[in-house]
Amino acid sequence: MLKHFHVPDEIAVHVMEPALRSTTEAIFMKCGVPKDQAQLGTDVLIYADLLGVDTHGVSNMLRAYVQGYNNKTINPSPVWKIVRETPTTAVIDGDRGLGLMITPKAMEICIEKARKYGTSVVVIRNSGHLGAAGYHAVMAAKQDMVGWCMTGGGNSLVPTFGAEPKLGTNPIAVAVPAGKQPMFIFDAAMTTIAGNKIGLARRNGKKLLPGWVAKDDGTPDMEGGSTPEFAAGSVRMQLPLGSTRELGSHKGYSMAAIVDILCGQLSFAPGFATLANNRRGHFVAAYDIAAFGEVDEFKANMDGMLEGFSKTKPAPGHDRVIYAGISEYETEIERRKNGIPLHPEVVDWFKGICAEFSIPWNLTKK
Amino acid sequence: MLKHFHVPDEIAVHVMEPALRSTTEAIFMKCGVPKDQAQLGTDVLIYADLLGVDTHGVSNMLRAYVQGYNNKTINPSPVWKIVRETPTTAVIDGDRGLGLMITPKAMEICIEKARKYGTSVVVIRNSGHLGAAGYHAVMAAKQDMVGWCMTGGGNSLVPTFGAEPKLGTNPIAVAVPAGKQPMFIFDAAMTTIAGNKIGLARRNGKKLLPGWVAKDDGTPDMEGGSTPEFAAGSVRMQLPLGSTRELGSHKGYSMAAIVDILCGQLSFAPGFATLANNRRGHFVAAYDIAAFGEVDEFKANMDGMLEGFSKTKPAPGHDRVIYAGISEYETEIERRKNGIPLHPEVVDWFKGICAEFSIPWNLTKK
Repeated sequence: MLKHFHVPDEIAVHVMEPALRSTTEAIFMKCGVPKDQAQLGTDVLIYADLLGVDTHGVSNMLRAYVQGYNNKTINPSPVWKIVRETPTTAVIDGDRGLGLMITPKAMEICIEKARKYGTSVVVIRNSGHLGAAGYHAVMAAKQDMVGWCMTGGGNSLVPTFGAEPKLGTNPIAVAVPAGKQPMFIFDAAMTTIAGNKIGLARRNGKKLLPGWVAKDDGTPDMEGGSTPEFAAGSVRMQLPLGSTRELGSHKGYSMAAIVDILCGQLSFAPGFATLANNRRGHFVAAYDIAAFGEVDEFKANMDGMLEGFSKTKPAPGHDRVIYAGISEYETEIERRKNGIPLHPEVVDWFKGICAEFSIPWNLTKK
Repeated sequence: MLKHFHVPDEIAVHVMEPALRSTTEAIFMKCGVPKDQAQLGTDVLIYADLLGVDTHGVSNMLRAYVQGYNNKTINPSPVWKIVRETPTTAVIDGDRGLGLMITPKAMEICIEKARKYGTSVVVIRNSGHLGAAGYHAVMAAKQDMVGWCMTGGGNSLVPTFGAEPKLGTNPIAVAVPAGKQPMFIFDAAMTTIAGNKIGLARRNGKKLLPGWVAKDDGTPDMEGGSTPEFAAGSVRMQLPLGSTRELGSHKGYSMAAIVDILCGQLSFAPGFATLANNRRGHFVAAYDIAAFGEVDEFKANMDGMLEGFSKTKPAPGHDRVIYAGISEYETEIERRKNGIPLHPEVVDWFKGICAEFSIPWNLTKK
């Protein structure tokens, strides 16, 4: 992750994973979430915190969820159900529960179907925020499958040559198992930067770099300097991956459209036919490696490819080349040992909510 | 497509589709390709010419195929076979035939499996050039399915922070049916520009724009001006979609890696474990829309979404916003009427090869 989004070292408060986990579970349960669901949702959040996906960890998301439970836009105890099913597909109605807890269930169904038939796709409608897409994709990779996860909806991406946002940031995650090398995990928005990173930049007092957002009239800001306040104002104006037509923004725009189609149109979720701002859908898929060949041979081949990426001769000014998943692997080792860095503002929020919910304070105890 | 890659109007020679088709079929057959295969391969090429995908039409590719048949690197009459199969997957060994002819067969298998089970994936190893990935994806969309196609291999993409190429341009194609609106067809390389476009730029005497290639030491050329000769020299140094780390090049790099994994690792194709330069694999997938809901409802919803994209308010200096598939739709109508514009150099090549193969000349007859 670019330094732009890191909590500055001099103010970061480091908290240990077990304490953050138990506190987060307790907060979910105080919101009316059943214990097993609270544990599952917490696991998705803590995955992001441990791996350095700070945009999707407790610091950035938990307060939004608590607010959603408070104002009843999120159902704390959803009764989700399968509304259509074939041997390799299922459409789930999430009963307004968080995608955080429903998507792992969807991926379990997906894995079971792929194990039996080779491939599978499960889509979810009427469900809230997904959490880190990578978490759900990794579930399949741990079962020796290629795992996919996407989430679509919302309007914050300005199409190429457009002057208003029409798509969400629409991340794609793909996880692939390897043998000795850390697993390949890709998880990224189809905008230049993830939407939540604009919030992190604001919290860290940073301006936006060239190519991240459009100006008010839709023209790409290729000089940089737009402030997070502008970019995250009443209308979010993020540029697709590629930033300008000459640099390939039509590709980022189109891939975001594909995510909307797979998540929203395939799940027949409300609002996708009108590009309604509050539309949301999720997609998971699994391809069983054993359906294609020997798993051990596949993993050995993956090791070779991934080592090949890591051994790429670096360009001047860079120490090494990495592949998707390496930073996450290294960050998890470091954060399990030294703790997860939180912004003091986030610690203050936790103190307040723990007092309000009568949850014992243990985050910053030694 | 950027004007950069168009045959300049003042020199373009327009040829009609039926004549180009019959001549191309005859050339394939003179190379030893059976008639039905020649017709199929020609259909894939002409699709690209008609839709304006000039990088993958006869003008850019046919001479490379003829050369491959001549020097025996491509098998004109392959006996391809399924080497592993499950209800929803198949691995095909292509017996060194062109992907152009084998991939439509793979997609037929894919469609049949998806119709029966909901989803499917078929991969191909030991097969030559794919042609336009969009062609194969569209086959599924015409059967009311979401169609995917990718092709991986070769080294022309420089990983983020790297100084040498480690991946191919690795295109992804996705096609989705609509009702009244032109079909959504995305087909694009995971580099800033398609590899073949460097050849087109050279033919048209154009320099390369910022963000398209890396300099010799791996540093992204963000000033532009690199010549096609440099960029297409002994080592191709293309930048991933995103161009620089700050603009998201790690996303283009990672998506190219995903394409290599799906095409090459899932098909257990030779060379992928070592990132060998001559490795190649193809991937097709189909998701049957009827497995998820009513097809008519899906298409009506797609119409709404696609109209929503087209109605986006344009930014200053632009007339309209389009979605992936609109240019192709409009270009096909125009080219069926007015002909396919070829560079005089290409017409000369056709004249030479027709004389050599004793094929009657009919391309520029009125």
